[in-house]
Amino acid sequence: MGTTHEKNNHIGLTQAKGKTGAKTSAVSPLAPPEGFPKLPLIKGVQFASATAGIKYSRTDVMLAHVKPVSAVAGVFTQSSTRSAAVIDCETKLNRIAELSDPPEEIVILVNSGNANAFTGQQGDLAVQEISRCAAHHLGLALNHVFTASTGVIGEPLAYDKINQVLGELKDNLSEQSLEDSARAIMTTDTFPKGAGSNVNCSGSPVNISGIAKGSGMIAPDMATMLAYIFTDVRIKQSVLQGMVSKLTEKTFNSVTVDGDTSTSDTLMVVASGLAENIEIVSENSQDALEFKKGLELVMMSLAQQIARDGEGATKFIEIQVSGAATYKDARKVARSIANSPLVKTAISGEDPNWGRVVMAVGKSGAKADRDLLSIRFGDILVAEKGKVSGGYQEVFGQEYMKKQEIVIAVDLGVGKNSACFWTCDFSHGYVTINADYRS
Amino acid sequence: MGTTHEKNNHIGLTQAKGKTGAKTSAVSPLAPPEGFPKLPLIKGVQFASATAGIKYSRTDVMLAHVKPVSAVAGVFTQSSTRSAAVIDCETKLNRIAELSDPPEEIVILVNSGNANAFTGQQGDLAVQEISRCAAHHLGLALNHVFTASTGVIGEPLAYDKINQVLGELKDNLSEQSLEDSARAIMTTDTFPKGAGSNVNCSGSPVNISGIAKGSGMIAPDMATMLAYIFTDVRIKQSVLQGMVSKLTEKTFNSVTVDGDTSTSDTLMVVASGLAENIEIVSENSQDALEFKKGLELVMMSLAQQIARDGEGATKFIEIQVSGAATYKDARKVARSIANSPLVKTAISGEDPNWGRVVMAVGKSGAKADRDLLSIRFGDILVAEKGKVSGGYQEVFGQEYMKKQEIVIAVDLGVGKNSACFWTCDFSHGYVTINADYRS
Repeated sequence: MGTTHEKNNHIGLTQAKGKTGAKTSAVSPLAPPEGFPKLPLIKGVQFASATAGIKYSRTDVMLAHVKPVSAVAGVFTQSSTRSAAVIDCETKLNRIAELSDPPEEIVILVNSGNANAFTGQQGDLAVQEISRCAAHHLGLALNHVFTASTGVIGEPLAYDKINQVLGELKDNLSEQSLEDSARAIMTTDTFPKGAGSNVNCSGSPVNISGIAKGSGMIAPDMATMLAYIFTDVRIKQSVLQGMVSKLTEKTFNSVTVDGDTSTSDTLMVVASGLAENIEIVSENSQDALEFKKGLELVMMSLAQQIARDGEGATKFIEIQVSGAATYKDARKVARSIANSPLVKTAISGEDPNWGRVVMAVGKSGAKADRDLLSIRFGDILVAEKGKVSGGYQEVFGQEYMKKQEIVIAVDLGVGKNSACFWTCDFSHGYVTINADYRS
Repeated sequence: MGTTHEKNNHIGLTQAKGKTGAKTSAVSPLAPPEGFPKLPLIKGVQFASATAGIKYSRTDVMLAHVKPVSAVAGVFTQSSTRSAAVIDCETKLNRIAELSDPPEEIVILVNSGNANAFTGQQGDLAVQEISRCAAHHLGLALNHVFTASTGVIGEPLAYDKINQVLGELKDNLSEQSLEDSARAIMTTDTFPKGAGSNVNCSGSPVNISGIAKGSGMIAPDMATMLAYIFTDVRIKQSVLQGMVSKLTEKTFNSVTVDGDTSTSDTLMVVASGLAENIEIVSENSQDALEFKKGLELVMMSLAQQIARDGEGATKFIEIQVSGAATYKDARKVARSIANSPLVKTAISGEDPNWGRVVMAVGKSGAKADRDLLSIRFGDILVAEKGKVSGGYQEVFGQEYMKKQEIVIAVDLGVGKNSACFWTCDFSHGYVTINADYRS
């Protein structure tokens, strides 16, 4: 079953500058500097993208084809106004979870430019038509076609344009095309997002490669974005779903850009089972722990890349909360700081305004005691025992705030629980992008 | 006990342009156009302001002196990091509430420029010193001095500067000086805020006059701001407190600028009892209802003026939610829309982006059904039955969004409860003000 501490290799994250095709042409200054990463190929998984012309004049549809299938897991937005595609995917996934055997093959078909959300029965029809047409063209069961749409809410989706490129997509399927797919699903993203890892399960190499999109309407209610992760691991359906659900809280649900929650957000993890590991059937086996580590790396990297591409972002911010009475309290405080417009605008202005951090702790509703609270910017102790730290000088904070990556660490001093959140600053760029998204 | 439908006169709200002295020199375009209102004088209540030079080179301290006192009521921020002055006021008010007789006299002493929040034991000391010195100078009991401080968090308050102007404040006390006090407590406010009303209780005229400050760090957790309201009504302590607590939810706690909650927010309502009405001893008497109407007008006006002076505001927004399953749900949805950065930036850009309203309904956590939801901009039906309305054209929405006062009405269609919230848009001005507050 493999040795205890096999090394996990995290494939470097990169961007390809100047090729995004998204509306905002400048790449985020926080994008990983190395270009899109070279991701491991996943046996049994092929990709294609095409230009359907829904809104953009670039590739705007991706197709992923997985055959065979070992397991499929998913987590979806909790919004009460979630889109037709989200509802459809949930239904199909629940059906798969109930079966004793996984489906023979599945496809995932995603378009950008139109979210097909709040489009009434017309929206339901669009999902059915795309699914029906894809099932027909690709020769698989209707229930094994998963779709997603991302972009503007409330405008009818011209689904026929998607159906017209299905033949082209089918003809171009290739194991190599994951990066192109990452580009095709971008909306206001300024760089395509990818991450991969490989682990060793019962002596056999297992690969994990994922892509994501998202830069606005990001908030921690599994809300966030579209993310698709593929792996060749052999794993039981229920074990994969359990892992994905748990890891989502610490990764995608710990990232926020603006506190807003999309109607369309979707994370799917699909395993082809073509690796040679012994099937993972329990969450606590050594192989399961190894695989989980690799999956967490990929999920965390994709989640953080989304914050790095936050609309108008100029600073990447990590909020570390410790000393909380409960884990729930730790998350409350971290989320409150990460979502505070006053904290985020101060960081945008490179103002070490720790008073606003105190404010955000205070409003969070978590148990806190003014006189036990301490605040650090990076390694700099700014405040402790209910007031500014004796050794702190404003100039230290000012210098620290010039960095592109900011860590705000808060110790509540009332317990032993901790949590992290990731976000970005709130700049003029955010207002510019969002006051003018549709025009 | 007075007739049933005495007319309430709401004194017009106004601004005085170009005299604010606050950091941001331009007066909000949403300020009431008539200048600061002529407020009724309140028998037994006198005001003074002075320049202590804490941060600004304008008047920055106000003193209100009330003698005699019929009742004192207060509502304070729920922040767990609330300031020393807030904690002190709560303690003193609780003590008054426990006594059978009201105090003979009270004073309220407020400074702007420094919030004396998160200043540790030094902060507690500052409140004690200011209270002690004011009690000594003005010849009243320590427990009857109420203080407040507003401005930057985390910097020690130079309380001696306040104590040095106490003599001047005492000498200048006058019934006429409420407007000057409204100016002295401003921070990033662009206009002083005042409102008044008069009602008739048991055949006697009763006057109500109030002032408020606040334009950032405003959120509905009785959070918001400083507001002081004075009246000559004769009323029982517990009845006044009950009224103020209830009215706060529909007024100050239904206003949000940025979802952030201050550490210092305070509303106090003080009655001198020098009107000739028969003392109000029950919340349900005819006189109580009359007085409550007048008080609500003043509280609502002050609350809305705060949203009108939201940092960077260019649009005043009313969110009307109806058809909710519960009142709590109605407030959840209204707050979610009012706090959504994506909704607020869209309005700033005059984009009728109702899809973002749908998103905000969806993320609120309230019971909603996509196919029963309807959305209006003013009188324009934009969306119904889960999709864009048949008669709606984008050009209607675009035209409506050019207005300075925007109404977004959402009917959830799942119940009979409703709620209103007021807010402003999220503009470049907000980022500019808050990325540069302390420099």
